[in-house]
Amino acid sequence: MSADLAAPSEGPLAMICGGGALPLAVADYVAARGRKVVLFPLVGAAEGLPVERYPHHWLYIGQIYKFISLARAAGCREVVFIGGLVRPSIWRTRPNLRDLLFVPRVLKAFRGGDDHLLSGMARLLEDEGLILRGAHEVAPEILAPEGVMGSVQPTGADRADIDFGMRYLGAASPFDIGQAVVVADRHVLAVEAIEGTDQMLARVAELRTSGRIRAASGRGVMVKAPKRDQDRRFDLPSIGPRTVEGVVQAGLAGIAVVAGATVIAEADKFVAAADRAGIFVVSVPERQP
Amino acid sequence: MSADLAAPSEGPLAMICGGGALPLAVADYVAARGRKVVLFPLVGAAEGLPVERYPHHWLYIGQIYKFISLARAAGCREVVFIGGLVRPSIWRTRPNLRDLLFVPRVLKAFRGGDDHLLSGMARLLEDEGLILRGAHEVAPEILAPEGVMGSVQPTGADRADIDFGMRYLGAASPFDIGQAVVVADRHVLAVEAIEGTDQMLARVAELRTSGRIRAASGRGVMVKAPKRDQDRRFDLPSIGPRTVEGVVQAGLAGIAVVAGATVIAEADKFVAAADRAGIFVVSVPERQP
Repeated sequence: MSADLAAPSEGPLAMICGGGALPLAVADYVAARGRKVVLFPLVGAAEGLPVERYPHHWLYIGQIYKFISLARAAGCREVVFIGGLVRPSIWRTRPNLRDLLFVPRVLKAFRGGDDHLLSGMARLLEDEGLILRGAHEVAPEILAPEGVMGSVQPTGADRADIDFGMRYLGAASPFDIGQAVVVADRHVLAVEAIEGTDQMLARVAELRTSGRIRAASGRGVMVKAPKRDQDRRFDLPSIGPRTVEGVVQAGLAGIAVVAGATVIAEADKFVAAADRAGIFVVSVPERQP
Repeated sequence: MSADLAAPSEGPLAMICGGGALPLAVADYVAARGRKVVLFPLVGAAEGLPVERYPHHWLYIGQIYKFISLARAAGCREVVFIGGLVRPSIWRTRPNLRDLLFVPRVLKAFRGGDDHLLSGMARLLEDEGLILRGAHEVAPEILAPEGVMGSVQPTGADRADIDFGMRYLGAASPFDIGQAVVVADRHVLAVEAIEGTDQMLARVAELRTSGRIRAASGRGVMVKAPKRDQDRRFDLPSIGPRTVEGVVQAGLAGIAVVAGATVIAEADKFVAAADRAGIFVVSVPERQP
């Protein structure tokens, strides 16, 4: 069976859940449409989530056979990956003997950049007859709409920084680098690679404290965009209230993302936090390659 | 008077000196050819250097008029900028009234990326009749020769990482971003922006300690290249013994730079340190755009 993204949804949705607010938000959106969900929270990532609101089965990463059996038994044909996964936790695996059969393929999936990892996992599930969906396909409510969110508007200089950052991310995209960059006055202050957006923002905050940043506080934009060829079924860039905190600490003016290609965790809280902090949030149309 | 890089050297060489081992090394190479040098060590950067070996005048950054007067009085027509300059020190200025006339132009030079800063300074000096030279033009001994330095050879996988890193730096070059990237198994681990190479390497070391790097210790390359359009008269990438330390801490296999376009500080110590640490150092030919 191959993935057919145009196929109508049918049967309960299997959701493999990492951490953060998104997994339950997506489950709620899907359930609100009358579709059943079955959660598969991951040990080491999803602790503390109110998973008991839905049928659920805890999984260790690596328990792929267990997942496939349980998903099939629950009548699920479609699977969504959603939520944060700190990389070291990936190795807290507890495979049984049958899972071990998959280990060589999982290890293969882990080589190369994130994109390779994730598309390897997708093929593995699809070979077992499960269809992988993007969370934004089953719950489009989580995507950033085009335009300014909140009450703060970017200036013309901010727009120039956003354009500069988006052009850089486009140029870096073929190299499968992280998804974010900080630009102030058309000067790149930081580029995200594997450290992640939060740590990149913390670095900008430190560089500002130590006087290494010439731009005044309240100048500069955190620009985030999907990599050109990434599998959007489980790797869209995401922002949320914690991003606002990081941007404020870094002394930046705002956040720019790509409309329809960015997940916003807890959108209401996110926009309220941005407004309180006086930073803008804008979603721009996707650039064509 | 305009800069004419083909003009024969004449008269003593004025050297504006930042920190590190390079300024005196260049002075020694130039003096060994029988040319006089006059050092202008910068307060806040060049302390501790044995500047007393040559005629010298300490300068605060910003004392441009004082520099121009002293350089002219010493008969210097050519100027070299050499050595490290930590950005905050740039603001420890002590201008006199006449220097203040230059302040608007200096401030203008400070806008935009490093390249703009430096080429703005170049134009300013040239308008005053001084010719700016690259340290590598007056002391070509400081440049990395093509090929493997030291006794450790890069593997085929290392060569693939080097090529990947050089291609990324080429793509990022129009954005005037930092000059270095860390690549392991064709996966970008870190990109240098304004934090500098040493801090980028420290980040890789931390990411390794925290288990965020999948590649085994002893895999990966620090790749450094000049930006395509940068003014090489004072902004060539440089490496030295401290780079070896950073690369070792980061658990990488080696260092790759561009032959003839990279300055090596204390080359003998540098190569000896790399050999002791078992890391390779290779200079590859410059890629054509």
